[in-house]
Amino acid sequence: MDRLQRNLIGRVNVADALTRSAAARPAQVAVVDGDRSLTYPELDAWVSRLARGLAARGYARGDALALASGNSAEFLAVYYACARLGLVCVPVNPGWRPDEVAWVLGHSRARGIVVESQLVAALAPAWAQVPAVADVFVAPGTGGPSGGGTPLAELETGGGPVEVLVEDRDPLSYLYTSGTTSFPKGVATSHLAITMESFSAALDSGWSAADRFLAMMPMFHTAQLNAFCTPAVLLGATIHVARGFEPGAFLDTVECERITQVFGLPMMYRAALEHASFAGRDLSSLRRAVYAMAPMPEPLIRACLDGFGCDFALLFGQTEMSPCTTLFRPEHQLSHVGAVGTPITGVQVAIMDEGGALLGAGEQGEIVYRGPSTMTGYLDDEAATDEAFRHGWFHSGDIGSFGEDGVLWFADRSKDVIKTGGENVASLEVERAVHAAAPDVAEVVVVGLPHARWSEAVTAVVVPRPGATIDPDALVAALKGHLDGYKVPKSVIVVDELPRTSTGKIRKNVVRDAHTGHYGGR
Amino acid sequence: MDRLQRNLIGRVNVADALTRSAAARPAQVAVVDGDRSLTYPELDAWVSRLARGLAARGYARGDALALASGNSAEFLAVYYACARLGLVCVPVNPGWRPDEVAWVLGHSRARGIVVESQLVAALAPAWAQVPAVADVFVAPGTGGPSGGGTPLAELETGGGPVEVLVEDRDPLSYLYTSGTTSFPKGVATSHLAITMESFSAALDSGWSAADRFLAMMPMFHTAQLNAFCTPAVLLGATIHVARGFEPGAFLDTVECERITQVFGLPMMYRAALEHASFAGRDLSSLRRAVYAMAPMPEPLIRACLDGFGCDFALLFGQTEMSPCTTLFRPEHQLSHVGAVGTPITGVQVAIMDEGGALLGAGEQGEIVYRGPSTMTGYLDDEAATDEAFRHGWFHSGDIGSFGEDGVLWFADRSKDVIKTGGENVASLEVERAVHAAAPDVAEVVVVGLPHARWSEAVTAVVVPRPGATIDPDALVAALKGHLDGYKVPKSVIVVDELPRTSTGKIRKNVVRDAHTGHYGGR
Repeated sequence: MDRLQRNLIGRVNVADALTRSAAARPAQVAVVDGDRSLTYPELDAWVSRLARGLAARGYARGDALALASGNSAEFLAVYYACARLGLVCVPVNPGWRPDEVAWVLGHSRARGIVVESQLVAALAPAWAQVPAVADVFVAPGTGGPSGGGTPLAELETGGGPVEVLVEDRDPLSYLYTSGTTSFPKGVATSHLAITMESFSAALDSGWSAADRFLAMMPMFHTAQLNAFCTPAVLLGATIHVARGFEPGAFLDTVECERITQVFGLPMMYRAALEHASFAGRDLSSLRRAVYAMAPMPEPLIRACLDGFGCDFALLFGQTEMSPCTTLFRPEHQLSHVGAVGTPITGVQVAIMDEGGALLGAGEQGEIVYRGPSTMTGYLDDEAATDEAFRHGWFHSGDIGSFGEDGVLWFADRSKDVIKTGGENVASLEVERAVHAAAPDVAEVVVVGLPHARWSEAVTAVVVPRPGATIDPDALVAALKGHLDGYKVPKSVIVVDELPRTSTGKIRKNVVRDAHTGHYGGR
Repeated sequence: MDRLQRNLIGRVNVADALTRSAAARPAQVAVVDGDRSLTYPELDAWVSRLARGLAARGYARGDALALASGNSAEFLAVYYACARLGLVCVPVNPGWRPDEVAWVLGHSRARGIVVESQLVAALAPAWAQVPAVADVFVAPGTGGPSGGGTPLAELETGGGPVEVLVEDRDPLSYLYTSGTTSFPKGVATSHLAITMESFSAALDSGWSAADRFLAMMPMFHTAQLNAFCTPAVLLGATIHVARGFEPGAFLDTVECERITQVFGLPMMYRAALEHASFAGRDLSSLRRAVYAMAPMPEPLIRACLDGFGCDFALLFGQTEMSPCTTLFRPEHQLSHVGAVGTPITGVQVAIMDEGGALLGAGEQGEIVYRGPSTMTGYLDDEAATDEAFRHGWFHSGDIGSFGEDGVLWFADRSKDVIKTGGENVASLEVERAVHAAAPDVAEVVVVGLPHARWSEAVTAVVVPRPGATIDPDALVAALKGHLDGYKVPKSVIVVDELPRTSTGKIRKNVVRDAHTGHYGGR
């Protein structure tokens, strides 16, 4: 029998989930993006038209197609068209510099790029450097000149079913992670990994087809894409696309669209709570608000629970795990403030020492993972893959420990452990102490800076609350009551703001580089 | 890097779910069987001891191990030991005749068999015919002489972790189904298929680790094993083992153990409702009762909903689909009496005409399936596999149609398999036995007629030879020497002639319709 026919029956292909939802729920709205609303059959048909057009231009299983776009229906359609045809989608972060984009286009061997019109001017210098990028397809986006690319709509081609052989472990995406190294690594993630992530996320979160998701975190990041959008499509639920975050618009959408599931950063929930219009809102549709990146301090989580009146949960993980590994669940939010939760259904989480031995509850070491949502490897980087997969586990680079009750506590990034005077200091512990000792501090990041005597000197870089002033010496003195002597910052640097990634994560390495000469170097 | 190390990180192995639950929920009870109660770490360690013992005796990836056992902790431990070691488990139905068991042992190339002590005497003649079966391991069971086999406990071997390379699509079981042919086909089901079934079942049923499952349907059938037991282990929930069904004991267990999830036949729920002790029971722990094999008539489902006070759902599917394809969900039980539900998350369901074209809502045709829980194929039967997989869909042999609202209605079976009391009976086999037992029968057609207890009752409709008379009771008595008990017709109906098509083929559906009220309906 024909190999394709057998493949079609039992395979794992992320786009088959879309076809299933279209068949099972023909009247259900899949995506709402501004004025547009697409049912599942409409989205499924659009994806097939795009896939046929790509096939007609010679795109075939394994070819890479870059995608530079804000959140939009087009983003999802192109992602699913790649899945349907067995292509590899390479999301481009619009915040990258053109030389970074060019490097990613070259490294991923992208044959083409889909780009939103407003990004063309900024990104054209990138693809101009990479002759292998033969096609530029321009999605409508939010305006601006198309720069001579082919309108995405012209790619759409009619015809019969798009049925192409795709194996379970074929890559669906290369997700480039901004590490602390100079160029990002390409995380190869398979159809199987994303399917397992989708099932686990839906199962552990209690989602159903009746849910209405608000997608306001960037889709070019794995968390929004694979822990929310692909589970929503798997279930046949509805995705409301937001192009970004503005607290008033966020609250309007939740209220008007009766949103049930949201995902954002702690600072977004804080901004919504502090918005002038918050008090009068009807947010009763919300079932769960998920937050990412960092645990919330107790006053904020209490304010969120009171204000939003729904469950809160923290999603913890990383791109290489597609990305969720633990969920800090609603029932632990107040009893375990600062923890990162318990493993999701498809992932095994353990703590490992430097020699590869697994450690017990209460013992601190590197957090390691196993599970079918793990990446296949780093594209064209066997050495980095071997390093990440040593001892038969994926190494997160995070330091943590399990409590006796099975709840995971994150201590720090292993690379954010400061080695000072022969001692290891977790920057997170010092950051918590700063918040406890100095209510006037709005934000703090603790780094180790080169120092002749201490090798690295523990240093706090702080942003004061609006209208407040911070006295560095007084803060150092205050911390002596909160920390062991060797953990007390050698100095406090006051700044106006901290550099962030597009997802709002503080860029510690940029902070470190900016102040590297603070103690006169080593 | 070592291929095994990479395999361990990201693979799909059903036994890894047990390890994950043991790691994440060390105090949780996995299995309660009579007086025994095993936590997840205890079950996990037992499975490893069995796997090590099998490995020490030379069992390796791909080898088949038969398993003849009633419901027990040992059944689950052996199944997971096979998974851990990459072996193929071959469940044996204790109701099969020794020559059928021998055929299955030979066809599956079983190297050994695990058998419960009370089954040894009946099954020993089977393995005596198959020299390749080198090992007989005897589980304690409910008593009787061990017949010289090795006690299962002697197989247990200590040591380090059992880590063996197992690929996603390696078979975990050959599940033998009685079809229309005289010997059953071996359905090869992979780790991936069972994992997808487990996730879909858990997701679509809203199960969690807090659930307590009562396992009273036979574990050697795929529904109990893969739609309830493996999802329970995936979630880290608790399984209470029942060796069979008796209405008083069933109600006692639900009440005492605060069971939340049960799975049984319609007749079991009816028997419980009619039990003298029913009225005084506290069944408030029950969240959902699933039934199998056939829709319930309206009076029964109403009585069940009133009496049990929990959700009811019908599981529909077949062994080749691991097995669930649709769930007839709680919200449809009264609005769509007689339907078989809507697709589960991982399965696409369609209606196909004889030429391979998909049909729309309201059109009747064969029910066909796609999804990663589909079998790999029939073991050593490429022709049957090709036939089942034609046109790129799995062909169920069932006739049905979708309503405009997306609910599936089952009309008939195109293959002539009678589903009676949870067992499949091939009408052809019974027809052959009638001819062999009763030379005075000119023609016979065997059909399943609606029956309150058996769901469908095996019934022979016979035409005597000219001048001969048939005594129905005598014929039933005579057939007991030719057929397993559950295949013997519940009654014989004597008629003058059978309805035929213009080409002379007996119109079975007309026969069935003519006698549909024979047992007073469902």
